[in-house]
Amino acid sequence: MPLEGKMLIGREAVSGSSKPITAVNPATGETLAPTYQGGGKAEVERACQLAEAAFATYRETSLEQRAAFLEAVAAEIEAIGDELIERAMAETGLPRVRLEGERGRTCGQLRLFANVVRAGEWLDVRLDPALPEREPMPRADLRQRHVALGPVAVFGASNFPLAFSVAGSDTASSLAAGCPVIVKGHSAHPGTSELVGRAVQRAVETCALPEGTFSLLFGSGSEIGQALVSDPRIQAVGFTGSRGGGTALMRTAQARPQPIPVYAEMSSINPVFLLPEALRARGAKLAEGFVASLNMGAGQFCTNPGLVIAVKSPELAAFVEAAGDAVKESAAQTMLTPGIHSAYEQGVGRLASNAKVREVARGQAGESAHPCRAGLFATSAQDFLADPELQEEVFGSSSLVIECADQDEVRQVAAQLEGQLTATLQMDDADLDTAKALLPILERKAGRILANGWPTGVEVCHAMVHGGPYPATSDSRTTSVGSAAIFRFLRPVCYQALPAGLLPEPLKDGNPWGVSRLVDGQREA
Amino acid sequence: MPLEGKMLIGREAVSGSSKPITAVNPATGETLAPTYQGGGKAEVERACQLAEAAFATYRETSLEQRAAFLEAVAAEIEAIGDELIERAMAETGLPRVRLEGERGRTCGQLRLFANVVRAGEWLDVRLDPALPEREPMPRADLRQRHVALGPVAVFGASNFPLAFSVAGSDTASSLAAGCPVIVKGHSAHPGTSELVGRAVQRAVETCALPEGTFSLLFGSGSEIGQALVSDPRIQAVGFTGSRGGGTALMRTAQARPQPIPVYAEMSSINPVFLLPEALRARGAKLAEGFVASLNMGAGQFCTNPGLVIAVKSPELAAFVEAAGDAVKESAAQTMLTPGIHSAYEQGVGRLASNAKVREVARGQAGESAHPCRAGLFATSAQDFLADPELQEEVFGSSSLVIECADQDEVRQVAAQLEGQLTATLQMDDADLDTAKALLPILERKAGRILANGWPTGVEVCHAMVHGGPYPATSDSRTTSVGSAAIFRFLRPVCYQALPAGLLPEPLKDGNPWGVSRLVDGQREA
Repeated sequence: MPLEGKMLIGREAVSGSSKPITAVNPATGETLAPTYQGGGKAEVERACQLAEAAFATYRETSLEQRAAFLEAVAAEIEAIGDELIERAMAETGLPRVRLEGERGRTCGQLRLFANVVRAGEWLDVRLDPALPEREPMPRADLRQRHVALGPVAVFGASNFPLAFSVAGSDTASSLAAGCPVIVKGHSAHPGTSELVGRAVQRAVETCALPEGTFSLLFGSGSEIGQALVSDPRIQAVGFTGSRGGGTALMRTAQARPQPIPVYAEMSSINPVFLLPEALRARGAKLAEGFVASLNMGAGQFCTNPGLVIAVKSPELAAFVEAAGDAVKESAAQTMLTPGIHSAYEQGVGRLASNAKVREVARGQAGESAHPCRAGLFATSAQDFLADPELQEEVFGSSSLVIECADQDEVRQVAAQLEGQLTATLQMDDADLDTAKALLPILERKAGRILANGWPTGVEVCHAMVHGGPYPATSDSRTTSVGSAAIFRFLRPVCYQALPAGLLPEPLKDGNPWGVSRLVDGQREA
Repeated sequence: MPLEGKMLIGREAVSGSSKPITAVNPATGETLAPTYQGGGKAEVERACQLAEAAFATYRETSLEQRAAFLEAVAAEIEAIGDELIERAMAETGLPRVRLEGERGRTCGQLRLFANVVRAGEWLDVRLDPALPEREPMPRADLRQRHVALGPVAVFGASNFPLAFSVAGSDTASSLAAGCPVIVKGHSAHPGTSELVGRAVQRAVETCALPEGTFSLLFGSGSEIGQALVSDPRIQAVGFTGSRGGGTALMRTAQARPQPIPVYAEMSSINPVFLLPEALRARGAKLAEGFVASLNMGAGQFCTNPGLVIAVKSPELAAFVEAAGDAVKESAAQTMLTPGIHSAYEQGVGRLASNAKVREVARGQAGESAHPCRAGLFATSAQDFLADPELQEEVFGSSSLVIECADQDEVRQVAAQLEGQLTATLQMDDADLDTAKALLPILERKAGRILANGWPTGVEVCHAMVHGGPYPATSDSRTTSVGSAAIFRFLRPVCYQALPAGLLPEPLKDGNPWGVSRLVDGQREA
């Protein structure tokens, strides 16, 4: 079925009446049909009305119903076939292999959440049985479960047109929690969004769920997003993007008569610490791994290694030289959008023109309309500490090496960092004590700490934390990747002395849903 | 040891230089020595400096060390003996039996958290073992635990001088999580606060913890509180009090360069639904139970039943009459502070002068300087729905009966309620269907739903939720009472491929701390 250039509101496909959106192939600059007529307040109103109406039914679907729905979404996305990959390639400039991998991740993520739903850990069932004989006062029967917050607004990200977009992690975890979702699709890949949106729409229908379980809106500018976040029926927001965009949504959410949580994943420069023994033993290999991570996806990852920190030494100089050589040979890759390309050029320009910063190397210019020409820069710890601007994220394949006088200065730099998604240690056995002194600092700065790997590549699993202190995210208590992401869209409710007939299923005697339970504070076997 | 009228900063007792605070006996109006010289920015600075310095050590105390400390705090509070009860009686006007009960609750709560710390559920340990052979990409070893957020600012509440004050629930759960605490003591009970603060201070010393683990500040007005919440070292805030106070702290916390979570428990009118069969079968008994709950502690509970909702009927009329009779006979109780008394009088006055509201009964005036004269009022559902002011909390023994035309209107009233801490159903077996239709609405409105009990009296246990949608609290995803309160002060960190020697203890192979773990998404037996 050809793309129609429509928004999806419940079971309908509709056109808006605000500014049109047209995708651009960033590799060629050519525009891609069809044009999407953007929506406005009327479409937000209709989608919210349907989401609210769907919530009562959807939040109380059984574990199996909800899991089957998530699996149906995955199957429908796979059933689109190559059309999805080709459209995404055209809209993003990302290569086929990356997008096929991302599709696998997206569908794997939906199936992971299906299993999370079935396992029922997310219900956090807690039972404190009645103690009628207790003195001086008896205790009533108390039971707790988690319930869904309500309809969620999800903002698609530009850099993961599948895994962080229409049916990405925020959508999958909201739906898993029992929340209807209204996606505001990213204007850079409306066709990809429509294809995936229709897949979700089909799954809603085949699973006989209320149509308002899912809607997909488009709109350029911030109007539609602000309207969505302001709507009283929306109860939480998922966002991945710029710091400016994220903080604007936070402000809107906090200014509501009823403030709501915003889960914004915003910016991170992902420091990599090269410890002396590792640098001595395998500097060349580290340089190779580093530049591969730096260039992956034209550096357009939240976890791109934008900062390298080490003590100044001949080994560090050799590392920088080797990394610089690799950067010089780096072929340019097409960036996702003209806007991202221009912001990257500005960011790299700021570094290049900073008197305290040394340009180590730039990559190839290439022939794309919007190429990412990699950049490697260096500065001293003292200059870095003196200039907060050097902590600003440059979204793309740009990184800054910080040369420190000693490990004290390394720790000083670490302690002055803003919140990060990741922090990486390159270390050998003999670096253990150095690493031990850094770890407590890094635990306060980042959501994930890696040893001897690279921060790009985020595993979708149970132990993952893709989050971190502000400004990496708006809420360090959460993760936007992995099964724990579901907790963002839940809240606890306690039921005191309810008659058996009124108790929600998972709280009933005999544990009919067979979920893990905390009874009197003890985990039931 | 006599009271010194001092703030406690680390191991010192200090005087400030800002406005003095003097406690008033609300029953007699007499002032109580000593005078407390309030603190300001200098004291905030010093307390934050010490808390930050203590954090590195305190957050990594072993489960046993931390649990033993919480138990030591409880023992030190008990060791104060009757002096604590007498001072609290003088400062609050609350009766001995209530304060002895509250001391029991406070110490029980500290010991509950000691057991919570030992059990280690709060660490939320998750392990996803490495899959080196996985295709197309191997999986690294990933392990997650929760870590403490950092120093926490706690604001003592006026209405629980022990259980929600210096060593109350917010302090106990912060300390349990591994966060140093700086308490801003409530100006209404500085002597009680000093006594308890010194008990905590002694426990810090006998347990050989860093002195900055705990500090206690005083200050009238909002200056010291705002300074505390603005300090970059403070990472979370616990508050119980008025909506105005809570929202002011929320704004300050959000305006920081790094916004932080505020857990404010603010206002709730705790609707009680009298279902028809229950009303028919035991209206008189319900009236008795209701007025007892209404009058408990002069109505100065967050869970006081400020709203009664039922279908208009002869049975409801009989209930209202019986409740009115009981209210008329209610002896006045002394309110906590002159300010609370005056706000109560204003609130009751607003109801009495509202043309759509009928005064059913007022209680006795009594002879206290600041008496709570109970009030029972009634109005129609239509008038209630038309006037948002009727939802405003009147802190004290005041309640409003809403007469509805039918169950549809009952549900309409329920749906228009703001967020609440509790919602109560008085129901018999034959009311089950009516209750079932109400429950989904109430689940979206309240953190705790009770059947056939009264909302006052909050059990401190694992399944308790003392929380609820805004404006009951600032964050419906949490509870401020019960063991789950610890999660407010924690965030997850993921460790990827860390060498064994660098892994935190609870994440090590062999589970040396013996805590519950989620391995590959499955709860370990």
